[in-house]
Amino acid sequence: MSTAGTAGLEGLRYDGRRPDQLRPVTIERGWSKHAEGSVLVSFGDTRVLCTASLTEGVPRWRKGSGEGWVTAEYAMLPRSTNTRGDRESVRGKIGGRTHEISRLIGRSLRAVIDFKALGENTIVLDCDVLQADGGTRTAAITGAYVALADAVTWAQGKRLIRSKSNPLTGTVGAVSVGIVGSVPLLDLCYEEDVRAETDMNVVCTGDGRFVEVQGTAEGVPFDRAELDGLLDLAVSGCAELDQLQREVLEVPK
Amino acid sequence: MSTAGTAGLEGLRYDGRRPDQLRPVTIERGWSKHAEGSVLVSFGDTRVLCTASLTEGVPRWRKGSGEGWVTAEYAMLPRSTNTRGDRESVRGKIGGRTHEISRLIGRSLRAVIDFKALGENTIVLDCDVLQADGGTRTAAITGAYVALADAVTWAQGKRLIRSKSNPLTGTVGAVSVGIVGSVPLLDLCYEEDVRAETDMNVVCTGDGRFVEVQGTAEGVPFDRAELDGLLDLAVSGCAELDQLQREVLEVPK
Amino acid sequence: MSTAGTAGLEGLRYDGRRPDQLRPVTIERGWSKHAEGSVLVSFGDTRVLCTASLTEGVPRWRKGSGEGWVTAEYAMLPRSTNTRGDRESVRGKIGGRTHEISRLIGRSLRAVIDFKALGENTIVLDCDVLQADGGTRTAAITGAYVALADAVTWAQGKRLIRSKSNPLTGTVGAVSVGIVGSVPLLDLCYEEDVRAETDMNVVCTGDGRFVEVQGTAEGVPFDRAELDGLLDLAVSGCAELDQLQREVLEVPK
Amino acid sequence: MSTAGTAGLEGLRYDGRRPDQLRPVTIERGWSKHAEGSVLVSFGDTRVLCTASLTEGVPRWRKGSGEGWVTAEYAMLPRSTNTRGDRESVRGKIGGRTHEISRLIGRSLRAVIDFKALGENTIVLDCDVLQADGGTRTAAITGAYVALADAVTWAQGKRLIRSKSNPLTGTVGAVSVGIVGSVPLLDLCYEEDVRAETDMNVVCTGDGRFVEVQGTAEGVPFDRAELDGLLDLAVSGCAELDQLQREVLEVPK
Amino acid sequence: MSTAGTAGLEGLRYDGRRPDQLRPVTIERGWSKHAEGSVLVSFGDTRVLCTASLTEGVPRWRKGSGEGWVTAEYAMLPRSTNTRGDRESVRGKIGGRTHEISRLIGRSLRAVIDFKALGENTIVLDCDVLQADGGTRTAAITGAYVALADAVTWAQGKRLIRSKSNPLTGTVGAVSVGIVGSVPLLDLCYEEDVRAETDMNVVCTGDGRFVEVQGTAEGVPFDRAELDGLLDLAVSGCAELDQLQREVLEVPK
Amino acid sequence: MSTAGTAGLEGLRYDGRRPDQLRPVTIERGWSKHAEGSVLVSFGDTRVLCTASLTEGVPRWRKGSGEGWVTAEYAMLPRSTNTRGDRESVRGKIGGRTHEISRLIGRSLRAVIDFKALGENTIVLDCDVLQADGGTRTAAITGAYVALADAVTWAQGKRLIRSKSNPLTGTVGAVSVGIVGSVPLLDLCYEEDVRAETDMNVVCTGDGRFVEVQGTAEGVPFDRAELDGLLDLAVSGCAELDQLQREVLEVPK
Repeated sequence: MSTAGTAGLEGLRYDGRRPDQLRPVTIERGWSKHAEGSVLVSFGDTRVLCTASLTEGVPRWRKGSGEGWVTAEYAMLPRSTNTRGDRESVRGKIGGRTHEISRLIGRSLRAVIDFKALGENTIVLDCDVLQADGGTRTAAITGAYVALADAVTWAQGKRLIRSKSNPLTGTVGAVSVGIVGSVPLLDLCYEEDVRAETDMNVVCTGDGRFVEVQGTAEGVPFDRAELDGLLDLAVSGCAELDQLQREVLEVPK
Repeated sequence: MSTAGTAGLEGLRYDGRRPDQLRPVTIERGWSKHAEGSVLVSFGDTRVLCTASLTEGVPRWRKGSGEGWVTAEYAMLPRSTNTRGDRESVRGKIGGRTHEISRLIGRSLRAVIDFKALGENTIVLDCDVLQADGGTRTAAITGAYVALADAVTWAQGKRLIRSKSNPLTGTVGAVSVGIVGSVPLLDLCYEEDVRAETDMNVVCTGDGRFVEVQGTAEGVPFDRAELDGLLDLAVSGCAELDQLQREVLEVPK
Repeated sequence: MSTAGTAGLEGLRYDGRRPDQLRPVTIERGWSKHAEGSVLVSFGDTRVLCTASLTEGVPRWRKGSGEGWVTAEYAMLPRSTNTRGDRESVRGKIGGRTHEISRLIGRSLRAVIDFKALGENTIVLDCDVLQADGGTRTAAITGAYVALADAVTWAQGKRLIRSKSNPLTGTVGAVSVGIVGSVPLLDLCYEEDVRAETDMNVVCTGDGRFVEVQGTAEGVPFDRAELDGLLDLAVSGCAELDQLQREVLEVPK
Repeated sequence: MSTAGTAGLEGLRYDGRRPDQLRPVTIERGWSKHAEGSVLVSFGDTRVLCTASLTEGVPRWRKGSGEGWVTAEYAMLPRSTNTRGDRESVRGKIGGRTHEISRLIGRSLRAVIDFKALGENTIVLDCDVLQADGGTRTAAITGAYVALADAVTWAQGKRLIRSKSNPLTGTVGAVSVGIVGSVPLLDLCYEEDVRAETDMNVVCTGDGRFVEVQGTAEGVPFDRAELDGLLDLAVSGCAELDQLQREVLEVPK
Repeated sequence: MSTAGTAGLEGLRYDGRRPDQLRPVTIERGWSKHAEGSVLVSFGDTRVLCTASLTEGVPRWRKGSGEGWVTAEYAMLPRSTNTRGDRESVRGKIGGRTHEISRLIGRSLRAVIDFKALGENTIVLDCDVLQADGGTRTAAITGAYVALADAVTWAQGKRLIRSKSNPLTGTVGAVSVGIVGSVPLLDLCYEEDVRAETDMNVVCTGDGRFVEVQGTAEGVPFDRAELDGLLDLAVSGCAELDQLQREVLEVPK
Repeated sequence: MSTAGTAGLEGLRYDGRRPDQLRPVTIERGWSKHAEGSVLVSFGDTRVLCTASLTEGVPRWRKGSGEGWVTAEYAMLPRSTNTRGDRESVRGKIGGRTHEISRLIGRSLRAVIDFKALGENTIVLDCDVLQADGGTRTAAITGAYVALADAVTWAQGKRLIRSKSNPLTGTVGAVSVGIVGSVPLLDLCYEEDVRAETDMNVVCTGDGRFVEVQGTAEGVPFDRAELDGLLDLAVSGCAELDQLQREVLEVPK
């Protein structure tokens, strides 16, 4: 278990953090005995269990291409939130938000995958939110990357992946930023998130380039200067997460 | 029927447009005899039928608040695309993409609504793609705004909306931008969209501020300079759409 | 675009038509750039978009038979009617009326298809009601026939259909008839339809034979003389539609 | 248990019947101890269990009208047919044919109901096919009428229906007719049904008027003379069924 | 049709039976002309139609094993009970109770099947409750066994089963027991079932061993002595059912 | 976090336990910050997160009764098992096994609830399996009881429960037993479970009485002596779990 804590100084934020400060982030590898890669990731009180399931073969539309596939499914436990939500399995359909986040996680991870090097293998990342306190999708992406890396290493050990080039072309992480009371903040907790005038999720590679930028004006529209400020914050937050992911992965599992 | 055509000069793009040029955009009001507002919007060969249905009352969770509600549903006809897709009604569930776009349209329109001034009325915007050639969601937002404006005017005439302040706090429009062959392009058609390295949908208010920014690296991640270039293009495209919306709405229905 | 207008003389009907008079019928071919055949058909204010999608191959149960297949799906846009209806895709299931009409359209078209001559190709007719004012199913059948004919011609041009005999063994069209205030009327509009004591949909081939006869007593049962009168009206209306279909198809697309 | 047998003379039909001869029809009342009305109806080997469930109150859209409602649901047991069919409950949706027949049965029964006299009561007719051998929908209508009549009598006894006028304005029955090998036949069994060139279901009131006429050309379209011949046969078959229903209902339950 | 009646002496039970007395049980073979085996079984007023459908081949996961498969589906007709229940096909999903009982019936029958001797054949047992008065699942198991036996005999006659050893390794039957007013009772009818403090379903083979034991405390938990008393009752009831099944099957169909 | 470990001596079992020995059982209270009660329970490698959500009010059918309600939902994370399973939310329906276990957990907990004392409050127990290694339903019941107890205490503190009598009338726990290689074993792990000839789940109250007994012959039926041996084992295992639950709950949260 690795922890990336940064002490807060000023009492400005709900939990005493500086505007540009991440919550304590922990990434616990090898959480499940069954999955090829598994991680329990925490961004403060947000806890997401990410498992990577690798199977030989690819979906039908990709057969014979010599290329692999990576996809993701996101879900929240019914009581991961303050008020219990209905189970989507009981309602019989998946809501729009769940769909949207599952697709975002999948796209984010595929941005750092060399499908040729992966070979005809499929990796499914399951990201189940055990406790939610804002930033569940960004925690999921950040943790899922580590689970994915472990699954790739496992498959290389089993000779299911035989390519000499690394199927992972880089690291990927994500963080939320937002404007609360006109102040741009990094890594919003739930209390900040519900008050944010603007809310943005940014997915970056370890070298600081963008995979996804999703900004939404919750109340009033935001101007270009505000957008620029949020992007600056997000890039620095992602750099910190990249550093943590590397440290965590250096420890042999 | 109003048309915002701009002639293309160079042969650079698939259809001869300049990189910063919109496709011919038309917004035909009053397309349906039943709906309180209805628009057939075209961005080139992309054609979306947008209807606004206004009913008195609001969803249960909003009752007694004195505030209205605006929501949207997006769908594609099965053969609006090059290859016929299954009907979501036949499959029995709505796909992630459909959900995602419906939610985007709803959020975009709500950004320019004063719910107090709307009163306890609900407006549903149905955006049905009759023919798709890239940019269906941005055409939908742009057209739906005009249908929404017509429904608001209708309701004011019927005294269903009685507030003196305008329920519409501004205009809203949207356009796609993307990087194709390293060149930033405005308003991608389908052929460009499938080749884009980066794809971004930007929703702006008439005064040039952002409601939504959704950028995705399809292949390689994009850097900050590329992001800035795309945002510049999008802002200028949205300004052109805002101009067109205003012209179209000046004509009495 | 072709129009079959017939001027009304007496003020007897809701819209001034004579009892035996069709509404203005238009059949606009080539409405969609993607579909192998596509038609926007209008019976007065009823507007249905009919697209024909041809794909090589047949459903599994028909493989190896050397015979093709033709099927249809009917749907109404949510605000095609006076009051917005729920989307069947959102409700997660198709209603009985939708099912019933889809099946009727499919059976009607198959009545004029020589499956051997069609070869192992499948044609799906999508009939989406853009605006409803009574008679949507009969407009759909009448328009879908023209879209089907265009798809067949297209496939012959592409050599996907190579038989020397024509896969189309005749034309097919449909019209509604009904008794309103004891008077038998041809081609009911919505206002007439809701007041009809008896409502009948009749599908005829161009040579005046019956493919489907579906008569329903909405209020009091009808007797044999009334039934005979309605059939007479329907046969003459279908003959007019057959004439229009032939004229429209004579124009090269 | 009552039986309406008619002896066959010539060997013309699959089971030796004359062209204008019904199969042996039996209507067994009081089959279920729970339902307010219940009937096991047989048309030859076709056996349908019809139960009428009467509850006080009406659907929301009819509340306060002082009028009742009658509706029906039809289904087949999985092995009522020669080959086992999937359960619709397991597939999770109802097929088009099931929907269509349920609606037909409901409409047919409502044609002989005076909703005012019924008062704000709802009667649901469940028609479950225990064994199928052609004509399941016509047997269902014929039997459901008797179950409906018993439920009405029960409710009158319980003073749930207090109107002095009879909620039943007449009897209703149904029979299939078809053209097999150019010969018009009454009451097709399965073997005849699959070979029929034209297939028609006719629902009549006891006084010989039509409630529903549904004719379909399975192969070649049919002409007016053939249609007239089929209608004649159907009317005489329905008269026989009406006679049987009356006899059966005369016996006190 | 065979009947196992046992006369009641004391007025202790709702229907005058002794505590250790079964209701009149009848097993009518050959009820359906289509199914390979079919039985209408009654335990008092509980009536269940059990059909056995045998098809060559097995589900995909069992292909090539040389072994067969047996499964079951249980359902209740909507008005088999005192109050009409919604159809599961209409609701679009199967309830927990239905699932549970279907699985129980399948497991019970598989306990007496030699899959090798059955060969690669699949038998589906459909158990549809026509009238419910308590003990529907136990009646279903008891009747389904007889339908299964008839289907096996049919398949041996058709040489679809060619093994010399009998695919049926024994008989299987089931009965409910429960404690009502502190008295252990055999074969509860509905009135007893709703009042039972403890309710137990026991599935036994003909030689008195257990296949399933499912006991549930409805109100207060039960102790070991009560459990033992209930098991004694159940074993004797199953022995009686085994006797009846053998008698019924001795008669040539 | 509390642990009930018992050291294994002989090498007889897969993991070295004695036949009558539980796996190490831990019950960690207060796992989630949102739920009114929450427990992470482990039986060896089986880990289940149990949360209790208390809301004021009861389902409609219970309103005005003055009595509360307790229900449960069980689910497995897709990769809690050795091979990834499809999400039931994605498949759009809940499987029979899930339904069955959810119902079992609910019944088990209701057996120790005094609904009058609970008042009109509803408690939902969500039992989500994070890692599965046999005995997930028994771990769920054992852990859910503790979460339920915490929720009741919480509600008493909030004065949502005001009765002077304890809503909990006792403790409840569950354990699996089975016969593997003719030896009766307590608390089967997955490897033992798949090899078991007979498998039984037993739910007991703290005073050693039975709430549920569910025994299934997987291969050969079991006789009365085997059944008795299994019940003895289960009762002693439940007594150990009861002891652990009491110890864990003594610690103030």
